[in-house]
Amino acid sequence: MTSRDGYQWTKDGGLTQGVPSIGVIQPPTHLESTSSDNFDVIVVGAGYAGLTAARDASVAGLKVLLLEGRDRIGGRSWSSNINGYPFEMGGTWVTWGQPHVWREISRYGMRNKVEISQEYSHGVNTFSLASATGKRVMSHDEEDQIIESGLKKFVNIDGEYGRKAMPFPHDEFANPKCKEYDSLSAADRLKQIEHKLSPDEYTAVCGFVLLCSCGDLENTSFYEFLHWWALCNYSYEYCVEYLMKYKFQTGQSSFAINFFQEALSTGNLSYVFNSRVSHIRDNGKVTVVTAEKTFGASRVISAVPLNVLNDISFEPALPHGKRAAASIGHVNKCSKVHAECTDRELRSWSGIDYPNNKLMYAFGDGTTPSGNTHIVAFGASHNHLDPEKDIGKTIEAIQTLVPMNLERVVFHNWSNDEFAKGAWFFSPPKMVTNYLQDMRASHGNVLFASADWAVGWRSFIDGAIEEGTRAASTVVQALRSNTAAASHGAARL
Amino acid sequence: MTSRDGYQWTKDGGLTQGVPSIGVIQPPTHLESTSSDNFDVIVVGAGYAGLTAARDASVAGLKVLLLEGRDRIGGRSWSSNINGYPFEMGGTWVTWGQPHVWREISRYGMRNKVEISQEYSHGVNTFSLASATGKRVMSHDEEDQIIESGLKKFVNIDGEYGRKAMPFPHDEFANPKCKEYDSLSAADRLKQIEHKLSPDEYTAVCGFVLLCSCGDLENTSFYEFLHWWALCNYSYEYCVEYLMKYKFQTGQSSFAINFFQEALSTGNLSYVFNSRVSHIRDNGKVTVVTAEKTFGASRVISAVPLNVLNDISFEPALPHGKRAAASIGHVNKCSKVHAECTDRELRSWSGIDYPNNKLMYAFGDGTTPSGNTHIVAFGASHNHLDPEKDIGKTIEAIQTLVPMNLERVVFHNWSNDEFAKGAWFFSPPKMVTNYLQDMRASHGNVLFASADWAVGWRSFIDGAIEEGTRAASTVVQALRSNTAAASHGAARL
Repeated sequence: MTSRDGYQWTKDGGLTQGVPSIGVIQPPTHLESTSSDNFDVIVVGAGYAGLTAARDASVAGLKVLLLEGRDRIGGRSWSSNINGYPFEMGGTWVTWGQPHVWREISRYGMRNKVEISQEYSHGVNTFSLASATGKRVMSHDEEDQIIESGLKKFVNIDGEYGRKAMPFPHDEFANPKCKEYDSLSAADRLKQIEHKLSPDEYTAVCGFVLLCSCGDLENTSFYEFLHWWALCNYSYEYCVEYLMKYKFQTGQSSFAINFFQEALSTGNLSYVFNSRVSHIRDNGKVTVVTAEKTFGASRVISAVPLNVLNDISFEPALPHGKRAAASIGHVNKCSKVHAECTDRELRSWSGIDYPNNKLMYAFGDGTTPSGNTHIVAFGASHNHLDPEKDIGKTIEAIQTLVPMNLERVVFHNWSNDEFAKGAWFFSPPKMVTNYLQDMRASHGNVLFASADWAVGWRSFIDGAIEEGTRAASTVVQALRSNTAAASHGAARL
Repeated sequence: MTSRDGYQWTKDGGLTQGVPSIGVIQPPTHLESTSSDNFDVIVVGAGYAGLTAARDASVAGLKVLLLEGRDRIGGRSWSSNINGYPFEMGGTWVTWGQPHVWREISRYGMRNKVEISQEYSHGVNTFSLASATGKRVMSHDEEDQIIESGLKKFVNIDGEYGRKAMPFPHDEFANPKCKEYDSLSAADRLKQIEHKLSPDEYTAVCGFVLLCSCGDLENTSFYEFLHWWALCNYSYEYCVEYLMKYKFQTGQSSFAINFFQEALSTGNLSYVFNSRVSHIRDNGKVTVVTAEKTFGASRVISAVPLNVLNDISFEPALPHGKRAAASIGHVNKCSKVHAECTDRELRSWSGIDYPNNKLMYAFGDGTTPSGNTHIVAFGASHNHLDPEKDIGKTIEAIQTLVPMNLERVVFHNWSNDEFAKGAWFFSPPKMVTNYLQDMRASHGNVLFASADWAVGWRSFIDGAIEEGTRAASTVVQALRSNTAAASHGAARL
């Protein structure tokens, strides 16, 4: 099936909207009962947070309705299937260093379905480092040395590369002093250390930090980068290992579909895709309004991203902190662009090109069944690219990264995505320390689940599953107590 | 409540059997229904594998009976509570590097309830390395250098410290050539490299490897050690980080009780403690026989350890591979001994004493509410200790490790435990490569779940949860299909 999401360009076909994905759900509507107002819980959003919540709640015996604006599951993580090859349109990489996602990979028997993305062994086995003053080509060992040495200076605020400042990556405020670093932007932190950085290190750090935030240096929180660094064992080696090394042979959607099918197998899951939620009203019972229909439930789990939270009208209105966080929004405006080329020898290439190229970080990510090389590239907001508006500039950006015989471009411009308004969460300064608890809080009978406010692997698929788990567990416990209280009451009568 | 398990010795009170634990379940029997032969699933064993299986199955709506021979939950991981201090009697340390256990810690809101066990900052802040030829006292930095340098030589069979041999620690046979190393014992591997080891490195490697297996060097599989090493990011730093750094402030039983209580809250869990299973008969429906009573169910999940599997009589008999693996048994004969002393300055001490001391590895593990230091020590089978039979020798072993003003000794001799016959799983050569699939296989309507045959963190609490998850998921799916097939059949009539 073909999703409306994503774009593809080929030499012969030009630019077309929509790409095939096994995450598209057909038919888009399935209601287990004709009554639409007596669900136990309505989950809004079918990304990993929503899918996990819907699965856990339906497995626990609750009557669940899953509402999704798109035609597919997965939210900000989904794979297209083009000529038998799964281009990853959003969230991609997973690892056993991420506990929630690995638990699910293990549970769905997919631990031997991961493969290595970067493969530095042959052909153009080099790294291109391009800055305003020119381009250098070097070995991947030199690449590692430059990025590692630059990043160690960047994070070394405590003489222990961040370990002292943030000793528990999964309990980030354990040392409350660490919060101070949330007033710094990446640009602020660079100013403190730029005299210690070589020009190559400076370019490499900018490229790597922007690969994480896909914002610009001024709106990227140094604290949030430090949290990523802590999650990655305080080392560049584990940044590579955990952030961009292992991916599914068959694509993210082949993983996400397990959650959906398990929920469906309980007989407790109803769903409506292509269904945008406009209002959520809570007056003891919660009403959820879409263009076509209104639904009712005891609880709602809102699993939509921070940047679109204010697009839903809540009654009673959301508290100030939640609205403020959503108005500020996270900063990630990534365009993720895949280039398929016939140059087999580019498989082991990687490059950073900052600040002039609209795609500032790229590397060989796979080989298609036809033997073509697949390069993945990232654009951030310091030099913004809307590929669907100017495919010519996109191709130029790719060819400037590394000249190639380009056959196909596949992309998802998350900055223009109506249901996400951004890619993975990355906070501006002061957002996490000021608003994390607000973003996580329930509002009456409405709960909020998103990778955007996870406390472990915030921003990641892992964080989405953490959050879906938390929301479902809270709802199941609450409704089970209600039932127990009701039976107890009945027994007393 | 006081468990029958474990022992305590004090100067005044002498040796007494049984220590208090919040894992003791009273009353020991709870049957949700008067009928004892219509359970969906009977889980045998209330360690983490059994608890996880019972929880997942009862949450999914199955009628579950949990049978346990002991008076408490937790199996080989449980904490005693003595004067407000949780001495860990078995499995202790956890980390966010272990996906299944961390998912549960996150889900039960305990991510900020972990604390650091080893605390090397003050007082006798040294490491004692004692061998047959004498004792050396050194800094913890020197300790790290010696152990790391020795271990790197021990595991470096491929020029990449095991990374090439076992590139996917959670998919251990991804490189099938790695299986070859399962024919080596630790003693065999030591023979290959002993000319490269300094005397200190030799003693340190022996001490560390025996801390992992608690067998002897001849019956410790080199392959299994390599698997641990791979799970620990192929580094000594992460051996410390993942194997013995973070533990629960309130003890393992305060974690395990969450699984039990959640299962109970569903109204689907029945249980009988103090109930030893003698027979399991499968003739389409499964019958489980205990001394007092016989129970029936559609499925059984046997969650007892490998070393006691042959103590249950199965009809039909277990297949050859399973019986053979259980007859060989794993090699871990650990005595875990806690020493409480008034010497506050010993908190930062650690030591290895091999081969003469009956406790070969020890370190400061905590400070009790009264300010005493708590030292944990391990005995293995190369120089076996049964503390309950000779408490004098135990005290002598402790005082030889490091002289102290001893107030209390608390221990669990796992080698003499009737329901475990050993501590955490550690394989002799050829067991994992020959029998892992056999140990994991179902037998008719009986499934087998144990950390002893997990494929990720085998031997760990994480592996137990992995296995309980797998077993429950398989049973839930099977019984759900049966129900669906039955309804479908009924609808057709």
